[in-house]
Amino acid sequence: MRIHHAVSRIGCFLIKKSTRDAFRSCRSLHSTVPVRSVELTKVRYPNLKRGPFSVLKDTDVQFFERLLSGAGRVLADASEIEGYNTDWLKTCRGCSELVLRPKTTEEVSAILNYCNTRRLAVVPQGGNTGLVGGSVPVFDEVVVSTQLLNKIISLDELSGTLVCQSGCVLGNLEEYIADYNLTIPLDLGAKGSCHIGGNIATNAGGVRLLRYGSLHGSILGVEAVLPNGEILDCMSTLRKDNTGYDLKQLFIGSEGTLGIVTAASVLCPQKPSAVSVAFLGCESFAKVLDIYKEAKGMLAEILSAYEFLDEASVSVNKENLKMSSPIGDYPFFVLIETSGSNGDHDEEKLNTFLEAMMSKGLVTDGTVVTESLKIKDIWSLRERVAEGLLHDGYCYKYDVSLPQSKFYNLVEDMRERLGASVIRVVGYGHVGDGNLHLNMTSPTYSSEVMSNIEPFVYEWVSKYNGSISAEHGLGFKKRNFIHHSKSKSAVSLMKQLKKSIDPNGIMNPYKVLPDD
Amino acid sequence: MRIHHAVSRIGCFLIKKSTRDAFRSCRSLHSTVPVRSVELTKVRYPNLKRGPFSVLKDTDVQFFERLLSGAGRVLADASEIEGYNTDWLKTCRGCSELVLRPKTTEEVSAILNYCNTRRLAVVPQGGNTGLVGGSVPVFDEVVVSTQLLNKIISLDELSGTLVCQSGCVLGNLEEYIADYNLTIPLDLGAKGSCHIGGNIATNAGGVRLLRYGSLHGSILGVEAVLPNGEILDCMSTLRKDNTGYDLKQLFIGSEGTLGIVTAASVLCPQKPSAVSVAFLGCESFAKVLDIYKEAKGMLAEILSAYEFLDEASVSVNKENLKMSSPIGDYPFFVLIETSGSNGDHDEEKLNTFLEAMMSKGLVTDGTVVTESLKIKDIWSLRERVAEGLLHDGYCYKYDVSLPQSKFYNLVEDMRERLGASVIRVVGYGHVGDGNLHLNMTSPTYSSEVMSNIEPFVYEWVSKYNGSISAEHGLGFKKRNFIHHSKSKSAVSLMKQLKKSIDPNGIMNPYKVLPDD
Repeated sequence: MRIHHAVSRIGCFLIKKSTRDAFRSCRSLHSTVPVRSVELTKVRYPNLKRGPFSVLKDTDVQFFERLLSGAGRVLADASEIEGYNTDWLKTCRGCSELVLRPKTTEEVSAILNYCNTRRLAVVPQGGNTGLVGGSVPVFDEVVVSTQLLNKIISLDELSGTLVCQSGCVLGNLEEYIADYNLTIPLDLGAKGSCHIGGNIATNAGGVRLLRYGSLHGSILGVEAVLPNGEILDCMSTLRKDNTGYDLKQLFIGSEGTLGIVTAASVLCPQKPSAVSVAFLGCESFAKVLDIYKEAKGMLAEILSAYEFLDEASVSVNKENLKMSSPIGDYPFFVLIETSGSNGDHDEEKLNTFLEAMMSKGLVTDGTVVTESLKIKDIWSLRERVAEGLLHDGYCYKYDVSLPQSKFYNLVEDMRERLGASVIRVVGYGHVGDGNLHLNMTSPTYSSEVMSNIEPFVYEWVSKYNGSISAEHGLGFKKRNFIHHSKSKSAVSLMKQLKKSIDPNGIMNPYKVLPDD
Repeated sequence: MRIHHAVSRIGCFLIKKSTRDAFRSCRSLHSTVPVRSVELTKVRYPNLKRGPFSVLKDTDVQFFERLLSGAGRVLADASEIEGYNTDWLKTCRGCSELVLRPKTTEEVSAILNYCNTRRLAVVPQGGNTGLVGGSVPVFDEVVVSTQLLNKIISLDELSGTLVCQSGCVLGNLEEYIADYNLTIPLDLGAKGSCHIGGNIATNAGGVRLLRYGSLHGSILGVEAVLPNGEILDCMSTLRKDNTGYDLKQLFIGSEGTLGIVTAASVLCPQKPSAVSVAFLGCESFAKVLDIYKEAKGMLAEILSAYEFLDEASVSVNKENLKMSSPIGDYPFFVLIETSGSNGDHDEEKLNTFLEAMMSKGLVTDGTVVTESLKIKDIWSLRERVAEGLLHDGYCYKYDVSLPQSKFYNLVEDMRERLGASVIRVVGYGHVGDGNLHLNMTSPTYSSEVMSNIEPFVYEWVSKYNGSISAEHGLGFKKRNFIHHSKSKSAVSLMKQLKKSIDPNGIMNPYKVLPDD
């Protein structure tokens, strides 16, 4: 008797005040693929031409060594810079010969001024956790790493405004402000490695977007260095400031192609005193959507995440990461997080909600947890899928927005299309934001599989007015598909702005904007 | 025994489920100043030079009459266009001879294409409720009104995405979506007249920003016509879409200087089923801030507005609008709104909070209301101050952001500085957002008073790294003070973008950007 079982299971966990301070970080783990075996990007894409940039000379390296004194600030040894050349997914590898690690905005300014004058191409790099090849060189671009731009500058407790350099690791920021009863309005699997500057540059979304909105709302100020080395100071710490064009918005999501973000101010919400997570099994994707609709109404202001995984996603955890699921096997799983200021109220709302979902037959089985370690375990099921997939070999990764009603059809169509040519096709993601993560795996990269996936997947998404990149950005891999999600007039204006701000095109070339 | 009295008063109103559907609209009321008596802007600012634009000819009017067929679409009669030339505050008056009222994006495109070719300057106008002279002509610019771009295009109930033309009145949109249990993430006094396109163009803030964030987060898509007539389609309805630069952000807050917003998609949150408003009296501004700090922790996710008024603000209501206050006289008043999905829970949170505030001696007196009419009455006290001030004659209006600790000192300093030279100095606004509305009045405009206010007020704000325009924008009146809030590098990049997008400078000249 599934339903009774589930009711009692839901009942037995219910709910005490607790705080989730879980430090989830799958993407900081090293993957099992050795860097050297990753094919060079210029080899994998033989038609791609290197831009008209200068080639690095000894005198350039000497300039940077004078500028950045101290050990470990100018890396030119092949073994040292290997990791900077290769993306986390092990799908892109550049051949940069130089990594620079500035500590101050002024150093970044001097670096870009020099590179612009010398026409040396530059790729900015944060935690290098991106999934579209945006943060690694394509050819021999100079890597400017934000690793040492890692100072917290100030915190205003009353307004919740945190000011820091762009190389601060997201998880470290969250730990720091937790002492002040604040939380970061952004949470994602890579939090243990990713930098706030990279989050801003890629307009990272993550699992809390449903509650706290996008970075376009919660980043109050940005300091960036323009391609010519000029420092652009838009470092407001004010919640409201309508004095001229909101230039910082241009840098949120431009993936390092317009400049390097060196510092930012972040509006941090009150840390919730009570957090609960429900993990539910259900029989169809239609029910996943029905539950979401009810959750919007009944959980409303305490709903902080609404995620789903299909059975194939959970199988990845079981098979490749030896994780176990706290409930039985179902075609679909829903992860609901609530967070609020009063645990008793939240408990009552969540109980009422879950009882209604059971009695309507929308939920078949489920568990609710409130202890931080158990919450962490449940979240791991969702957040470690990306890591688990890498164990299959090569992962074809898509991150699309679609109208919620069409959401899962893409996974089913892809499964039918690819059949036995891949190990698996899995779908999971942020239902609340209409954001599906679609992944296929094969033992090694196969251009045949790839040609069956692209452009099919982009055309499918485009047909329903979706986005071909919901939160990962376009980077290197998806830039030439931009027309599937953006109008010709929009792409044309983007190019015009790029040309105006970076006339020599040195900033992160071969990224975001399509070839002419 | 103030405290006992207040406790019982708070007790007696407490709290039933109710919904605020109040249609508050002070700024749609006509002010008492006749339009004709408003000094022409070009007379008041004799040093301002008209830009190198063409002068309207009969052949131009004939072109527009052919383009916009049907009555009332091309207005050229002086009496008909008087209202379009004058701002709501009656402080700016242009001398345009032509008002165009397109119904479609294509018509807007044809208008701008023609004006750009002919070098005719254009001012876009929505509800004309702006407070910085941004929506009226300075000289003889052609007015393009969005009044007839007023169609609702679509609504996705599940995701809450509303798509509409830019001339829809904010209050009408709110009424429309209320039937679908949704609400608009923006609320301001002018909602009965202001257009959503104008809200976007000015990045309107209002009283719900504390809860739902800024329009940079809740506007999902924008369609705009560029100065050369090209239609820029950035009309995403997706919550997440990281495909290239987020161009719509450029149009949010650029006050019609980069193009005309013709349509938008708005992310609408769930309509709260329970709303309560508390109106509290307290003895000092320090206590206003202490109460805010407590409210952030104790009301947290149900806190939807935290506003304050000083005694002088409430006096305006009493003297000029014959309104009465529901509680006694105090140096400061706080208006707290909560909204949530469970009235009983909200009631308990609000009661616990208010009891704590009384026992800590932070609140001296107060009342709590939950019925929509009573809620409307309390909100009127806050929202009709702007209207009441106009009855004094001329209003010197400032809207600044400041660190909360410095917030009220500016009002006190200004009161001391101006003494008997003005009728009154009042301060009210959005404490939660650090946004102060500072207003001074005199019987008629006085350049002597003005020279005592400016640049003093901007220098004061600049000293504390505040914003000289929190939510009203720069428009015509404040553009030359932009350097008090924005860095030289930022202003320079703004001008570069303007030049790139509007090389002939026809779009809303003399606004936002400072003179060279």
